[in-house]
Amino acid sequence: MPDLAETLSDITARMLAEPERGHVADYIPELAKVSPQHFGITVITADGQEQSAGDAHVPFSIQSVSKVFALVEALQSHGEAVWARVGREPSGSAFNSIVQLEAEGGRPRNPFINAGAIAVTDLIAAGHEPREGIGAILRLVRRLTGDPSITVDGAVAYSEAATGFRNAGLANFMKSFGIIAGPVGNTLDVYFHQCAIAMTTRQLARAGRFLMNAGVCPDSGNAIVTPERSRRIAALMLTCGHYDASGDFAFKVGLPAKSGVGGGILAIAPGQASIAVWSPGLSPQGNSLLGTQALEDLSRAMGWNVFQP
Amino acid sequence: MPDLAETLSDITARMLAEPERGHVADYIPELAKVSPQHFGITVITADGQEQSAGDAHVPFSIQSVSKVFALVEALQSHGEAVWARVGREPSGSAFNSIVQLEAEGGRPRNPFINAGAIAVTDLIAAGHEPREGIGAILRLVRRLTGDPSITVDGAVAYSEAATGFRNAGLANFMKSFGIIAGPVGNTLDVYFHQCAIAMTTRQLARAGRFLMNAGVCPDSGNAIVTPERSRRIAALMLTCGHYDASGDFAFKVGLPAKSGVGGGILAIAPGQASIAVWSPGLSPQGNSLLGTQALEDLSRAMGWNVFQP
Amino acid sequence: MPDLAETLSDITARMLAEPERGHVADYIPELAKVSPQHFGITVITADGQEQSAGDAHVPFSIQSVSKVFALVEALQSHGEAVWARVGREPSGSAFNSIVQLEAEGGRPRNPFINAGAIAVTDLIAAGHEPREGIGAILRLVRRLTGDPSITVDGAVAYSEAATGFRNAGLANFMKSFGIIAGPVGNTLDVYFHQCAIAMTTRQLARAGRFLMNAGVCPDSGNAIVTPERSRRIAALMLTCGHYDASGDFAFKVGLPAKSGVGGGILAIAPGQASIAVWSPGLSPQGNSLLGTQALEDLSRAMGWNVFQP
Amino acid sequence: MPDLAETLSDITARMLAEPERGHVADYIPELAKVSPQHFGITVITADGQEQSAGDAHVPFSIQSVSKVFALVEALQSHGEAVWARVGREPSGSAFNSIVQLEAEGGRPRNPFINAGAIAVTDLIAAGHEPREGIGAILRLVRRLTGDPSITVDGAVAYSEAATGFRNAGLANFMKSFGIIAGPVGNTLDVYFHQCAIAMTTRQLARAGRFLMNAGVCPDSGNAIVTPERSRRIAALMLTCGHYDASGDFAFKVGLPAKSGVGGGILAIAPGQASIAVWSPGLSPQGNSLLGTQALEDLSRAMGWNVFQP
Repeated sequence: MPDLAETLSDITARMLAEPERGHVADYIPELAKVSPQHFGITVITADGQEQSAGDAHVPFSIQSVSKVFALVEALQSHGEAVWARVGREPSGSAFNSIVQLEAEGGRPRNPFINAGAIAVTDLIAAGHEPREGIGAILRLVRRLTGDPSITVDGAVAYSEAATGFRNAGLANFMKSFGIIAGPVGNTLDVYFHQCAIAMTTRQLARAGRFLMNAGVCPDSGNAIVTPERSRRIAALMLTCGHYDASGDFAFKVGLPAKSGVGGGILAIAPGQASIAVWSPGLSPQGNSLLGTQALEDLSRAMGWNVFQP
Repeated sequence: MPDLAETLSDITARMLAEPERGHVADYIPELAKVSPQHFGITVITADGQEQSAGDAHVPFSIQSVSKVFALVEALQSHGEAVWARVGREPSGSAFNSIVQLEAEGGRPRNPFINAGAIAVTDLIAAGHEPREGIGAILRLVRRLTGDPSITVDGAVAYSEAATGFRNAGLANFMKSFGIIAGPVGNTLDVYFHQCAIAMTTRQLARAGRFLMNAGVCPDSGNAIVTPERSRRIAALMLTCGHYDASGDFAFKVGLPAKSGVGGGILAIAPGQASIAVWSPGLSPQGNSLLGTQALEDLSRAMGWNVFQP
Repeated sequence: MPDLAETLSDITARMLAEPERGHVADYIPELAKVSPQHFGITVITADGQEQSAGDAHVPFSIQSVSKVFALVEALQSHGEAVWARVGREPSGSAFNSIVQLEAEGGRPRNPFINAGAIAVTDLIAAGHEPREGIGAILRLVRRLTGDPSITVDGAVAYSEAATGFRNAGLANFMKSFGIIAGPVGNTLDVYFHQCAIAMTTRQLARAGRFLMNAGVCPDSGNAIVTPERSRRIAALMLTCGHYDASGDFAFKVGLPAKSGVGGGILAIAPGQASIAVWSPGLSPQGNSLLGTQALEDLSRAMGWNVFQP
Repeated sequence: MPDLAETLSDITARMLAEPERGHVADYIPELAKVSPQHFGITVITADGQEQSAGDAHVPFSIQSVSKVFALVEALQSHGEAVWARVGREPSGSAFNSIVQLEAEGGRPRNPFINAGAIAVTDLIAAGHEPREGIGAILRLVRRLTGDPSITVDGAVAYSEAATGFRNAGLANFMKSFGIIAGPVGNTLDVYFHQCAIAMTTRQLARAGRFLMNAGVCPDSGNAIVTPERSRRIAALMLTCGHYDASGDFAFKVGLPAKSGVGGGILAIAPGQASIAVWSPGLSPQGNSLLGTQALEDLSRAMGWNVFQP
C-alpha cells in the first residue's frame, strides 16, 4: 500500500492545479462568497493515523453532510420508527425534487435527499423548541469529534432561512400528507441550522470514525449505533449519498459517502478509514467536483473500495 | 464463522416452511406454470468450497440475471462505449418503466432495468444474425460455468416474444431516439432468448465466481474482466440490481446482487463467496421474496456484507 | 325552447331525489359540515329574466369559483402581465398537483388550478396588506352583483389557513422560482380569504352576468372587461375550469364553467345565460357531482352549448 | 361583417410576406421536402359560399387532421365503445408523449394525441386486412368531399412506416395493457396510411362541412353523425386539437380545430363556416405557425368565435 501522506500530498497538488473547479453553490448567498480555490482533505485510518493536506483547517458549511448526523440522532431517539417516515431507496431525482412526494403519499424516498432529511429532522424537532433540536444534533457532532467548539454559522443559517422557499415548499407539502408532525416553521428552523454547522475536514473525518468502526466511537469505546445500524447507514450513503449521481459515485469510487452543497464529502472505508474532503465547486448534480475526483484517486491508490475482494 | 452447510440447511428448512411465498410472475405464461414451493440455494466460497441445499439441481429461467452476463459480453466487445448507451444510476422506477426514457432522450438509466438491458443487448446483436448474438451470451455463460449443457428454454423464449409488447414498446421508443442501432426485431429476439436461459443455482453460482474473484475465472485463471470492471459491475449490482427495491436490498443484505422475475438471484460477497438462490414467488417489486429473505439471513449469519469492517 | 322555470323545477326535483350525491370535501373541516342534501340553481338570461329552484338562497363557500373573480381583478390591475405568471393550458393533473411546476420553472399551467390562482392572487396582494387584497376582490364581487352584503365566511377562512399546507407547499415552491413576489404568508392569507367568500346561487349567477354579456355589467352598462377578454376568460373556463375533468365537462355540457370544492359551479352560455348551481357532494376530480349533472341536463334542454350551430 | 374574399386575400398577403415561418417537420423525411413558403386557405360558409386564397389547390399531407375522420369512422362503426379505449381530457403533454400511458393503465387521454388516435384506428383496423381499414377512412373522406380522387400519398406512408419507431413504441406499450386488440403491425399500417392522406385546403374545408352543420353533410342531406356527436367532436377539437397548445389556441382563436404536422388545420365555426388552412412551418408544439396566426386574424375579422355572445 502506498504511503498515505505522500498520496494525499500528490492528490492535493493535482487538485489545486486543476483549472476546471465547478460552480460554487449560489442559491444560498452566504455560500456564494466562498472561493472555489479551496481544497482540503483529511484521512483517519482504523489504527488511528491521521493525515491532512490542503485547507484542512478551514471551516466550511457541512450542509447535507449533516443529514448523516441527523439520521443517527433520530435513530438513537426514535429507533426503527424513522422508517415509517422515510424510505431507503435512491430517488432517481434531483436533491430538491418534489415530484416523487406527490406520487408516493408525501413519504420521501430516503433520508439523504432534502425532503427526507426534513422529515428526519422533524422527528428530532417535534415537541421541542427549535434550539433544543439543533442542540441535540450539535451535541452528537461534538461527542463524535471530542471538539466542543463546533457550532452553527449564524450567517449561513440566516441566509438559508431567508432563501429556503424550496425547502419550505417540501416541508409544507409533506405536512399536508401528515409526514411532518411539528409546526413547519420549527422543523425548518432546526433543519436550516443543522445545514449551517461549520466544520473543517479534520473535524469531519473525526466525526465519521464510528462508521468505519462498526458504530463504535474510538475515543470513548462507546457504541454510537449498533454494528448493524452502522452497516445500514453506510449502505444508504452508498446508494443515496450523492443525489442522482449516487450510482456513478459508487461505480467510480466504491465507498459509502455523503456530500453537501458546501463542497464537503464524508466518505467511509469500513474497517479502514474515515475520509473528509472539501472543495466548494460543484458538479451539475450538486456534489463537490474536485472532492469526488480526489476520492476516486484516493480509493484507487489505497485500494479502499467496498467491492474490492 | 458458522458452518456453511449447516447454515444453508437451516435457512432452507425455514424457507420451505414459510407460508407467505409471494406471487409467481404471470405475465409470461410459461413462467406462471412454476410452483412457488421451490427453494434452492448454492454457495461457492473463494477457497473453492461449494455447498447447496434445496432445489439446487432444478433449472429455472434466469430472466434478468442474464443482464449481468449481457453487460459483461458488451463490455468485452465494445468497452467503455457501452456507457454512451446506458447510464449508471438507479432509476427510482419500476423495472419496465418508460417514463424516464422520455425525459432523458431515450437513454436508460442503467443496464439492469429492461430498457437498459435491451440497449446493451443491441450492442451485442447489431450487425449479426440473432442466433449469433444469443450465441455470444451463451458461450460466455458456458465458459464461466465450464458447463456446455446450459441452453435457452425455447418454450420460455417463445412465450416471452409472444407477450413482450412492453419490451417492444421500450425498444421502439429507444429506437426513435437512436439508442437502438439494429433492427428492433433482431435485438428483441436476442433479448428474449437471453432472458430464457435456464440454469440451476449450482450453475448460476459457478457463473458468478469471477465477480467474487476480481474478474478472474477460477477454473482457467483467465481474466473475464479487469479488477476495476469487476468492482464496477458489483457497484451497479448493489445500486441497481433489484429495480426500485435496490436500496432496501443494500440496506438489509449489503451485497451486490441481481434478481430476475424467474425467482433467481445472483449475489456476490467480494473475495468471499458467489451465491445463487432461487424461489419463484416474487415481491411486488418483482424480486424473489424468499430468495431475498434467505440472502438476508445468510449474509447476517456468515458476516458477508460489503459494509462490514 | 322549453319553459325555463319548468325546466329548473324538473331538474331540481330529479337532483333532490338522486341517491348518489358524491362526497362533501372533508380536507377543510368547516366544509365537511355541510349536508350533501343541498341543491340549488339560478339562471339569469340575457334579457334579464331570473329563475331559481331549490336552495338558491343558502350561502355556500364559493372556493375555486373565486379564481374567476381574482383573474378579472388581476387583469384589470395588471393587464397582460398576468400571463407572465401563469399559462393558458389545461394541466392534465389534479387541482393541487405540484409535479408540473417542477418541470416548468415554477410557472403554473393556468389560472384555474390552485398554483395558478395563488400566482394570480399574489399579483393582487403584493405590496399591500392582506385585507386590502381581499378587499379588492370583495369589492369586485359586490359591484358585479350589486349586493354589498357579500362577505368572507371567517370560520371557513380560518379553517383553510389552519389546514392549507398543500397550498403553502405550492406557494413556497413557486416563490423559490420567483413566481411569487410578495411574502408567501400574505399571499396565502388573501388566497384563503377569497376561497372563503360565501354566496348563494342567486348572487353567483348575478356575478357572472358580465361574462354572458361580452364583458359588460348589465346593471351599470359599464365594461368590466373588454369583449375580447370576456371571450378569453370563457375559453379558459371551458378548457381549464374543471381541473382534470375539464375535457369531459366540455364534451358533455359544452359551456364555459368554473367549479369549486364547496360544490358551486358558475357556467356561462355566451349571449344567453349566466347559470349558478350548487350541490356540495363532489366527484373524485373535485367537481360538484349533481351540479355537473344538472348543467348537462339544462344545456341539453335549453340548447345552450357553444358548439351548437 | 367584412367581405370574406377580401379578408382572405388580406390575410394571405400578410402570411406570404411573414419572414418567421416556423420549421417544417423533419422527422418524416418526405415531409421535410415541402417548402415553408406555401400558404393556402379555404372557407366554406353555412350558406354554401366558398372562398379560397393562396395555395388552395396544392395537396399536402393531412397527418393528424386525419384523427378527426378516424374518430368519426370509429364512432360510426363502434359507437360509445370508443370511449372505453380513449378518454376525453387534454393530456397536458406533447403529441407523442408516453408518460401518461404508464400512469393511467395504457389508456390514452384523448383521441387527438398519437396514442389515442392509434387506439381509435385499432378499432377500425381490428379483424380486417390493413387495406380494408384505410379503405374505410378514405371512403368517409371521399363521401364528405364528394371527391373520389382523394388518396394516400404512398411515399409519405412509406416514409412514416420506415421512421415511425415512436409510434411503434406507443402502440406496443398500449398493446401490453390490452388497449390494442389487433396485431400491432396491422394497426400501425392503417395509422401510417391515414396520416399520409393528401388533400388541398379546398378538399379539407369541404370535408369539415358536416361539423359546422350539426353533423349533416350539405351535399346529400345525410347525417354523418348526430347533432350531439357533432357538438362533442367539436368540444374535443377545442380542448385537445392542438396538443399542448390547445388551451392557447382556444384562448386566441376560440374555434374547435385540429392541426397536423403537415401544416394543415381544419377549424369549425359551428353554424357559420368550415375553414381549412395550410402552411408547412410549425411552432415548437407542432402546429402550423402561420396557419394558427391566420385563423386568429380570420376569427377576429369575421367575429367567428364560439365564446362570442
